[in-house]
Amino acid sequence: MLPRPLLCALLFASTVLLCAMPAAAQPADDAPASERPAVASPSAINTVQVEIDGGVPMYRIARLGEPVVEPSPLGFLLEDAPDLDGPFAITAVDTSSFDNTWEQVWGEKRFIRNHYNELRITLTEQEAPGRDLVVTFRVYDDGVGFRYEFPEQEGMEQFRIADELTEFRLTGDHESWYIDAYQWNRFEYYFENTPLSEADTVHTPLTMRTDDDLYISMHEAALVDFSTMTLERTDSTTLKSNLMPWGEGDRVRVQDTRVSPWRTLQLADAPGDLITSYLILNLNEPNKIEDTSWIKPAKYNGIWWEMHLDKSTWSPGEDLGATTENAKRYIDFAAEHGLEHTLVEGWNVGWDEEWYDSGKVFSFTESVDAFDLEEVAQYARDNDVRLMGHHETSAGVLHYEEQMEDAFQLYEDLGVRAVKMGYVGHDTEIERPGEDGETQYEWHHGQFMVNHHQEVTELAAEHQIMLNVHEGVKDTGLRRTYPNLMTREVAMGREYDAWGGAGGHPPEYTARLPFTRSLAGPFDYTPGMVDLHFDEHKPDNRIKSTLAKEMALYITIYSPLHMLADLPENYEERPEALQFMTQVPTDWHDTEVLNASIGNYITMARQDRNSDDWYLGSITDETGRVLSAPLSFLDAETRYVAEIYRDGTDAHWEDAPYDMVTEERLVDNTTDLTLRLAAGGGQVIRFRPATEEDVARLE
Amino acid sequence: MLPRPLLCALLFASTVLLCAMPAAAQPADDAPASERPAVASPSAINTVQVEIDGGVPMYRIARLGEPVVEPSPLGFLLEDAPDLDGPFAITAVDTSSFDNTWEQVWGEKRFIRNHYNELRITLTEQEAPGRDLVVTFRVYDDGVGFRYEFPEQEGMEQFRIADELTEFRLTGDHESWYIDAYQWNRFEYYFENTPLSEADTVHTPLTMRTDDDLYISMHEAALVDFSTMTLERTDSTTLKSNLMPWGEGDRVRVQDTRVSPWRTLQLADAPGDLITSYLILNLNEPNKIEDTSWIKPAKYNGIWWEMHLDKSTWSPGEDLGATTENAKRYIDFAAEHGLEHTLVEGWNVGWDEEWYDSGKVFSFTESVDAFDLEEVAQYARDNDVRLMGHHETSAGVLHYEEQMEDAFQLYEDLGVRAVKMGYVGHDTEIERPGEDGETQYEWHHGQFMVNHHQEVTELAAEHQIMLNVHEGVKDTGLRRTYPNLMTREVAMGREYDAWGGAGGHPPEYTARLPFTRSLAGPFDYTPGMVDLHFDEHKPDNRIKSTLAKEMALYITIYSPLHMLADLPENYEERPEALQFMTQVPTDWHDTEVLNASIGNYITMARQDRNSDDWYLGSITDETGRVLSAPLSFLDAETRYVAEIYRDGTDAHWEDAPYDMVTEERLVDNTTDLTLRLAAGGGQVIRFRPATEEDVARLE
Repeated sequence: MLPRPLLCALLFASTVLLCAMPAAAQPADDAPASERPAVASPSAINTVQVEIDGGVPMYRIARLGEPVVEPSPLGFLLEDAPDLDGPFAITAVDTSSFDNTWEQVWGEKRFIRNHYNELRITLTEQEAPGRDLVVTFRVYDDGVGFRYEFPEQEGMEQFRIADELTEFRLTGDHESWYIDAYQWNRFEYYFENTPLSEADTVHTPLTMRTDDDLYISMHEAALVDFSTMTLERTDSTTLKSNLMPWGEGDRVRVQDTRVSPWRTLQLADAPGDLITSYLILNLNEPNKIEDTSWIKPAKYNGIWWEMHLDKSTWSPGEDLGATTENAKRYIDFAAEHGLEHTLVEGWNVGWDEEWYDSGKVFSFTESVDAFDLEEVAQYARDNDVRLMGHHETSAGVLHYEEQMEDAFQLYEDLGVRAVKMGYVGHDTEIERPGEDGETQYEWHHGQFMVNHHQEVTELAAEHQIMLNVHEGVKDTGLRRTYPNLMTREVAMGREYDAWGGAGGHPPEYTARLPFTRSLAGPFDYTPGMVDLHFDEHKPDNRIKSTLAKEMALYITIYSPLHMLADLPENYEERPEALQFMTQVPTDWHDTEVLNASIGNYITMARQDRNSDDWYLGSITDETGRVLSAPLSFLDAETRYVAEIYRDGTDAHWEDAPYDMVTEERLVDNTTDLTLRLAAGGGQVIRFRPATEEDVARLE
Repeated sequence: MLPRPLLCALLFASTVLLCAMPAAAQPADDAPASERPAVASPSAINTVQVEIDGGVPMYRIARLGEPVVEPSPLGFLLEDAPDLDGPFAITAVDTSSFDNTWEQVWGEKRFIRNHYNELRITLTEQEAPGRDLVVTFRVYDDGVGFRYEFPEQEGMEQFRIADELTEFRLTGDHESWYIDAYQWNRFEYYFENTPLSEADTVHTPLTMRTDDDLYISMHEAALVDFSTMTLERTDSTTLKSNLMPWGEGDRVRVQDTRVSPWRTLQLADAPGDLITSYLILNLNEPNKIEDTSWIKPAKYNGIWWEMHLDKSTWSPGEDLGATTENAKRYIDFAAEHGLEHTLVEGWNVGWDEEWYDSGKVFSFTESVDAFDLEEVAQYARDNDVRLMGHHETSAGVLHYEEQMEDAFQLYEDLGVRAVKMGYVGHDTEIERPGEDGETQYEWHHGQFMVNHHQEVTELAAEHQIMLNVHEGVKDTGLRRTYPNLMTREVAMGREYDAWGGAGGHPPEYTARLPFTRSLAGPFDYTPGMVDLHFDEHKPDNRIKSTLAKEMALYITIYSPLHMLADLPENYEERPEALQFMTQVPTDWHDTEVLNASIGNYITMARQDRNSDDWYLGSITDETGRVLSAPLSFLDAETRYVAEIYRDGTDAHWEDAPYDMVTEERLVDNTTDLTLRLAAGGGQVIRFRPATEEDVARLE
C-alpha cells in the first residue's frame, strides 16, 4: 500500500494529465497514465511526459501534439559515489500550477508574467543504495525548463559529478546558429550557421530552426554553484549535456547547492518570439537585493576606444590614455550630454607589465602617476557624473580575489556606482593550486569561475556597485536575482572592428546577435560609433555599418548600460546622431519585435519606462531591405511625432555610410511605415507625443 | 549628328539616371552614362541598367545597390528571318514615369496604385538588315517587368521565333519552389522545394528565397498571342526563357501582336509582400469590357464531389449524378444558403464514350435524357440561383471550337452566368492538322492554346458569361483586361483528396499555395469540405485538415468564385462551418498578410468590399503553430465582434480534425490575438462592427 500523500499525489497527477494532455501526445500503448506522468503548459501548447524505460528515466517534449524532443535520458555519473543512472522507478509525482506577474527592477519589459504548470518527479533507485533523484519540469506556453534536485541523503552529503547524462534527442537536422565551446578565446567567435549535424560541442544559447520553421533556443537558467552546460552532439540530431570540467577533470562539486541550473528549451513559430520570451528570467529566483534605489540603467562614455585605435595606450608613458586631463575631457562630454558614467581603462598599476599572460601584476587600488584617482572621481561627482571603475583581472583570479574587497571599498568611497570587469586571457591563465599540490587551470565557464563571479556579484552589491562584466561567464538570467549584475560582453565586442588588417565585423554580425548572444541577456556591445572609418588611426579597419544602423543598435541590442563609445571629438561632426544617442533610454516598459529574420534583419520597438516615448530600431545585414512597420504598438489615443533617422537614397555601408536623412512626421497607431534600409544599413525612430505646435507645424 | 528628338531623349535619360541610380549600382568603369541607360524605381529601391557587351544587349537588376540579376542577354533566334541576336547598338533611350490608381472590377484589393519609371530602349542591328528591336523596362518598388516590341519593318511583317535568348543570371543557388514544365499532367504537380540548382525547366511562378532572405517571384504578365515562358536552368544559377513550342517545333508565330508578354521579377523582403504585390495586374492592359454589371464574384455548389467520391457517375446510367432531381436538390441548398450558382457536371452527351482520350465525343448543347436542361435552368432562376454551365472539352479543342458559339448562346438563353471550362487530357490530346498535312499535337501552354483561351474569353464576354477555367493556361493577370475571366484551377485541385489509395493532399500543400500557384492569380480550389473522412465512399482517402483549416481556405486562397464543394447532406452535420461559409465574401476591398512562412503557415486579413467586415484566415502545415495577429488593420474608431472559429485544444488533422471551438469576443484595432493552430489546422475569424447589444452582452 502506498502512503496516503503519495497516493493522492499520483491520483491528482493522473487527473491533471488526462485533462491537460492533447490526444496526439498520448503514448501509443496503454500503460496507466501514472507510469507516464505528464504536464501541459497553461494553454496546452507544450507538453512534457516522463517514463521509465528499462530503468532509465526518459522525458519527451511535444508542441501542439508533435514531438520536439524525442524520449531522452536523464541522470548522472558520479565520481565518488555510485552513479545516478538507475534502475529507477517513479515513486512520487507532484503537479502544481503557478501564475504571477512580477516587476523587473530594470529591463526590456517592466512587468513579466510567470505562468507555468509544474511536474515534479521523484525517481528512486531500485537497487542499493536506493537513493532519490528529483527532476522538476516547468512547462510554459513559450517553452520548457527542467532541473535536477539532489536531496540530502546518506552518502550524498557531498559528491562530484563525473558526467551529466541529460540528452536532447531532436527530431531533425535543424539549421543552427552557435559558437563552439572549448576554444581558447572564450565566447569571442562569430556565430556559425550550419545544419546541426555539422556542429561539434557548442555553447548555449544554441538557436535552431526546423525545416518546418519552428524556432528553438536551448540554454540554461540560474547557473549558480554549478558548471556551465555546453551541448555535445553525440549523433546527427542528439545533443548531450557536457559540463565544463574542473582542472582535475570532474565536472561539478555538489555540496551546499542541491539543485542544478534549469535546462531550457524556448519554442516559437517566429524568431522574434524567442526574443520576447522571458522564460530564462522566470526560472531565476526573485530579486534578493532589498534596496535597489542605487541600481539605475544609464549611459556612459570613456577612455577605451582610443586605445583600440592606437591613439593612446593602456600602459603608462607619453601616450597613456588614462591621464587626469583626458579623463576630465571625457567627463566634460558626459556632463554636457547627460551621460551618467565615464569609464577609464588603464588607470591602475600594472599595465606596463606583461599583464596579458599574467594578471598577477595588477593593483586594483593604486593608480598610475598620471591619473589622480581621487581628483577625477571628485571632478566627476562635481559634474553630476560618476567615474566608472575598471577591474581588468587578465584572468589572474586568485590575485584579484586577494584585493577585491579593498578595491570595491575604494570605489564605494569614491562614489563609483559601476565597475567594468575584465577577464581577458586564455582559459589556461586561470590557475589555482590543485588538490594534489599541482597547479590547475580552469575554464572561464567552469564551476570555479561561476562561483568566482557569484562572489564578485554579491560583494559588489554590498558596496552598491553595478557590474558590467566583460569576458565573464555567459548570462543565465541571474540579473533577476542580483539586479546589480547589469550587463556583460561575453561575445565578440566592438573592439574587433579596430583589430586585424582587414578588420571590421561583417554587416551580418549585428543581425545575428538578437537571435543568438542576446537571447542570454544584456550585451555591452559599446555602440555609438560616428567615425566609421578612423583612417587617421587604423586605415585598414572600418566599421561596416551606415550611421543610421549604428544608431539603431541602441534599440536592437539590449543593455541597461549603453556606451557612447566613440571619441568625444568625433561626435561634434555628427550632431544629429549625438542628439539621438543622448536621448535614447536604457530602461524599457515593453519590447516588441515587428519583423525578424535570423542573421538578416530585425525591427524592434521599445517603450521608454520613464516617459510616453517609443523607440523603433531596425537593422539589416549586407542586403538592403524594404520592411513594413505597422505602428500598432503606439497608444491608440495619442498622436506622435516620429523623429526619423534613416539611410539616405544612396546610403551603403561600403561607400556611403554617412548618407542619412532626418525628418519628422505625425503618426498614430494606424500608421504603417515602410522602412528602407540600405545594404548594411538601418533606421531608428523616436516617437514622442505631439504637442499642439507639432501638429500645427507638421500636419 | 543625331536627330534632335533622339538627342533630347538621350540627354533626358542620362539626367534621370545620374539622379535616380544609387551610387553602389554604378558601373565600375567610367563609360558615359548614355551607353548604360538605367532607371530606378520611384523610391529608388530597384534599378535596371542596360548595356551592349560585344554587340549583345545585356540588362541587370539591382536592389538597394546589390545585384539581383547579373548582366544577362536579351534577343531572339528566328526561323524564317535572320536572328535578332546582334550586333546591336542602343540608338534610342526613352524614360518616363507613370503613377495612377485604378479600380478593380472585383478582386483582392479594390484600388491599386500603378507607379513605375519606364526605360524604353531601341536596339538597332549594326549589320544588315539593320532592324530594330525595342525593349521596355518598367521598374516598380516591388519589382521589374520588361517586354520586347517588334516594330513593323521590312522583312519582319510576320516571322517565327525559334528561341528567346532572354536570360536571368541570378546571384546564388536560391532555395526554390516550382513545378517542372514539360510534364504530361499539365500544372497538376506538387510544388517542389529544392535549391535552384536541382531544378530543370520549370513553370512560373517560380518562387525563390536567397540565403539573405530576399524573396523573388519570377513570372510573366499579359500572356496574349504568344507562347508560355518556362524557365530553363542552363547553369547552376542561370535561367533562360524557354518558350513552349508549337507542334512544328517553332516557339512563337508573330503577326498581329507585336509585343511579347512582360517578363517579371517581384522582389520582397517578406514572403507576404509577394502576395500583396500587384505588379502582374499593373502590367496588364486596363479593362476592355465596357459593361461589367453582370460580372459578380459569387459562391456556388454543385454536382461534382459526389462523382469523385464514386457516389455517382459522370456517365449516364443508374448512378448518374446529373439528374434533374439531384440538380434541384443542390439548387435548393444553394437557394437556402444564398449561393449564386449551382454547377452540374455530366449534364451533356458524351460522358458514356471514351471521352478522356478523345474529347471529340462531347456535345455542348445536348443534355442527357435524365437531365432536363431547360427545366433545371428555370428551376434555378425561380429560386434566385443560376445554373453554372460546364464545358469539359477533354482537350478536344477543335471539336469544341466547332460548337462553342452555339454552346455559349444556349447558356446565355438559359440565364447561365458562369461556365466552368475543362481541358482534361494529355497535351498529346490537343491535336490539329499541321501545315504539312500531318496531325500536330499542342501543349496546353503553347501559343495555340493561349490563343484558344483568348478566343473563349472574348466569346464568353459577348454572351455575358463569367469563366472558371480548369486545366487551362496559367494565369498572367488577364483578368484585369477581361474581368469575366474570373478564376482558374490550373494546379492540383481538391479532387486529388479523393484519388489514389493513400490519397489526400499533405497538410503542407495548402501552406505552399499562397506563395506559389496563387501568386499567378485566383484559384478555384473548391474548398468547403466538412466531411473530412468520407469513409462511406472512399475509406482509404481523407482530407488532411482540421475543420477550422478548411474554413480558413476561403481566406488564404483567393478566388472570386468559391465553391461549397461538399455534399449538401454533409453540411447539416456542421452547422457552424456552414454558417461561416455562407457568410464569407468573395470580393474584397483590401488584403493584408499578417505573417507568413513559405510552405509552413500564413495568416491573411481581408476586408469585405460590400460591408465594414473583415475576415482573418490562418492555416498551417503538419506542424502546430502559435502565431501573433495584431488587429491593426481594423478601423481605429470601431469596436468589433470577433466571431472566432478555432482548433480546439485537442485538435489535430490526423485524429481530431473536427475539434473546433467557436466563440465571440469584443476586439478593436489595438487587440493582439494569439492564434493557436493545431497540426494541420487553422483558424478563421469574422470581424463585424459591434452593436450596443453586442457590447452589453460580451463586455
